[in-house]
Parts: sequence; structure tokens; C-alpha cells
Amino acid sequence: MNAKPLILVTNDDGITSFGIRTLIEVMKELGEVVVVAPDSPQSGMGHAITIGYPLRLDETDIYGEIKAYECSGTPADCVKLAKNYVLRGRTPDLVVSGINHGSNSSTSVLYSGTMSAAIEAAIEGLPAIGFSLCDYKPRPDFSHIKEYVKKISLQVLKNNPPVGVALNVNFPIKSANTIKGIKICRQAIAKWHENFEERHDPNGRRYFWMSGIFINTDNAEDTDEWALNNNYISIVPCAYDMTAHYALGLLNRDWEILKSL
Amino acid sequence: MNAKPLILVTNDDGITSFGIRTLIEVMKELGEVVVVAPDSPQSGMGHAITIGYPLRLDETDIYGEIKAYECSGTPADCVKLAKNYVLRGRTPDLVVSGINHGSNSSTSVLYSGTMSAAIEAAIEGLPAIGFSLCDYKPRPDFSHIKEYVKKISLQVLKNNPPVGVALNVNFPIKSANTIKGIKICRQAIAKWHENFEERHDPNGRRYFWMSGIFINTDNAEDTDEWALNNNYISIVPCAYDMTAHYALGLLNRDWEILKSL
Repeated sequence: MNAKPLILVTNDDGITSFGIRTLIEVMKELGEVVVVAPDSPQSGMGHAITIGYPLRLDETDIYGEIKAYECSGTPADCVKLAKNYVLRGRTPDLVVSGINHGSNSSTSVLYSGTMSAAIEAAIEGLPAIGFSLCDYKPRPDFSHIKEYVKKISLQVLKNNPPVGVALNVNFPIKSANTIKGIKICRQAIAKWHENFEERHDPNGRRYFWMSGIFINTDNAEDTDEWALNNNYISIVPCAYDMTAHYALGLLNRDWEILKSL
Repeated sequence: MNAKPLILVTNDDGITSFGIRTLIEVMKELGEVVVVAPDSPQSGMGHAITIGYPLRLDETDIYGEIKAYECSGTPADCVKLAKNYVLRGRTPDLVVSGINHGSNSSTSVLYSGTMSAAIEAAIEGLPAIGFSLCDYKPRPDFSHIKEYVKKISLQVLKNNPPVGVALNVNFPIKSANTIKGIKICRQAIAKWHENFEERHDPNGRRYFWMSGIFINTDNAEDTDEWALNNNYISIVPCAYDMTAHYALGLLNRDWEILKSL
């Protein structure tokens, strides 16, 4: 770590969102901040990257003296552009993404643009954190979590997680109850159940609105869902190895085609 | 499994691509096929879903008697719409995605629209396979892999992988050498190294083309990269639990803020 750490900030709600503003405020106290974030909301973009189209990248002075760039691409594009173009020759000591307006706990990590930026940084071997607040409002109250964002970031700067691991940090929504602390968790095995509402446009052509409810049937106490429901901050260390290692032996044992081919 | 299995087919290259045509041809021999696929190319979309915009879904007769729908959304959207709207009340015995024009081995699984459809199906508890051919041409030669697509699909119909596991199947490009067989593999720990080429549009405004080279430093022989490089078909069972379980204990041991808060 340098005397003054270099911190790359990005998000998925777009460079003007309240979440990234809050994150920049905190990071300014910790080091030299460079912002490369989407020029428009990219919620739900998962680990999408831009293929087949070029990317725009424009400097902006909305954060005053802080170097900031808005990018036409996805959060993962932003990290790639930051590493290979904006910061070329310099290696960030920390990459932070967020603060997302809404939960990215459990299975939502897969759909999350916020976390895809953090995971992209982890693939690059950089310490990375995605921060999300379980509050979907455009102007959520971040006042109860700023001190934790700072403490967690300082801890990561001091004790880098294993290379290739990105942290998925979710905060409970502000309430009358004080946050109880931090839990290191596994991702709850839960899912979204979608509903599609059929409508017709003014020309009579059909379209659908997708909405969903989150269903958690994983009641163990070591999950992010349990932590958040009990007013703890959840931190899930995330890997980018998707292999279901436990299934390797099963397939090798059961599949006849592995023997007959 | 029904007497005639119900098979949902999707992809990320779009409903008119040669890969999905080939996949439909094979699946027709195995069961009742329903196609719900993107109406435009969705390569690199990762696990993106459409939030904030409605979705279009239109029936098409391009596959004759086979029920087929084109959707304006991502591959993950297609699976959600298929399950909750097109097939409502019926449960597919198998969900297949592809055949992708290009590799989805190793870390590419994270960026892959093909695999996001399969993983979305796995989240829904359905047996799911993503098929990809390591050939990026718009009209690749699929002739050497059709029998394997059929055999692997039959094997999955007979022996469902554990619930929540999607299979990432990659085939070597057609060559003078016959495919040697199938390997059950783990995802190689490799990554893309991107380059951004700066250009200017006719108005003088800057834009970037992203291109990448794939760098594999994982030389073990149990990976998908090893299998493909040695002319085997690679099958990686993929989970949607991103938790780096091995890191849970490390963080709990090393982080002072867990004790002091």
C-alpha cells in the first residue's frame, strides 16, 4: 500500500447517484480517489460487458478536484477501462463499487452490476468491495452506514482478502435500531420469483413488465439474509470460480457416456 | 421425466443464429421443443436482466411447427419469461442454451449470456446445459458435435445433475483430429487482458474499441482449458453460490473490526 492509497470508485446506479456520492465522500478521507462510473443507470446488468459496440469515456468535473470519468458501458466495462486506460501504469490499492440503492444479498449477487464491478476487479487481482444498502429509494438515508463503509475499507486496505475474492457488503436500511455489528456470511440460497404483467401499448402491441418477490427458504444463521434480517451488516466473500466442485465426482461416477465414448 | 420430455431452448446469439438452429434440430429428436430466445444478439450480457423497461415477446413461425418466441430481453429474461409465462403450469425436463458461436470456457462463464440462461434455469431448479463451440465464425461447422450434443442431453435427462447445478459444455473447433472424448472439469483460473483502441468519430469525439486476449496461467490438467486444448469436450458443473467458502474463516480470524464493533 502507498502512503496515500489509490482508490478506484465505480457503481451501477450511474455517476450522479446519491450512493456513489456518499462513497466518494468517505473514500476521499482514505486516499486518492479516481472515479470511473456509468453515465446512466446500469442496475441488473450482471456481469455484462460491451461487445460489438464502442465505448464512450468522458471526463467530468462534477466531483470538483477528484478525477472523474463517465462511461457509456456497464460496471464491468468501467473497471476494465479504468485499469487498462485511465489508470494505466498505476495499480489501485482498492476498488469500491456502490453504494447501491437496494440489496445485493443472496442470489441477487448474480444480477448485480455493483458486484460485477467488484468481481471484475477481483479477477484482476485487486482488493475489491461492493457496498449495497437495503433501501431502494432514489435518495436513501446513508447516514447510519458511513462510519462502517470507512472501517470496512480501512480493514481491507490493511488485510487484503485472498487474491480473487471480492466482498459483497450489504447494510440494513436505517431504522430506530442501531446496527448490531458485522457478520461474515455465506450467500443464502434463495431466489426471485417473477411475475409478468401483460399490457398493450397505444398501438395495441403486447408488452410485459417484470416484477419479482424474493423468496428465501434458507433459514440457517450463517447467511447474509439472516444477518440483514437481524440488523447486522453482512459481508460475503465472493469467488469468481463458478465450478460446483462437489459435483465433479458425482458426474464422473454416474455418467455412462464418459465410459462409452 | 415425461414420455416425451419438454425441452426449453434459448441462446444469446439471437433466435436466427446458426447455433440455435443446430440445437433445435438435435432437440427435436429428443422431445417437445419450445424456443424462447432473444430477438437480437446478446453476447457478453452476463447475467443481466431487464429492469426499468418492459419486455416484448412475439411468437414466430421461423421454426415451422415448433413453438418459438422472440424476446427483446436478455437470455436470463428469456428463461424467466418462458418459465413464468410461456410455459406456465408446465415444467421443462431440460433447458438448453446455445450453441454459442465461440468459447465460454474458464472465466468467460461470467460474461456469457449463453451460460446465464443455463444458470438462471438452475436457480429455478431445472436441469440445464449451456453449449458452446470454440469457433467464433457466424457460420461455424457444427457437424462434428451434433452427436455429442444429443448424447450429453440424453445423459442429463437420465441422470439430472444435482439441483442448482448448470453444465457448461464447450466443444473444440472442427479440425482434422477426431474429438477424443468428454472430460468433467473445473473452470480454469484464467482471464481476459483487454486493450482499448482510441478512435475519433466524424465529429471529433473520442470513443474506444475494447478487444482482449485470453491469458491462461492455470496449467493443471483438470481444467476446461486443458481439455479443450487437448481436443476433449469440457463439461464444468457450475453453481450459483458465489461464496468463497474457504475465505470465511480467514476473515473471521484476521479482521479486528469484527471484534471491536
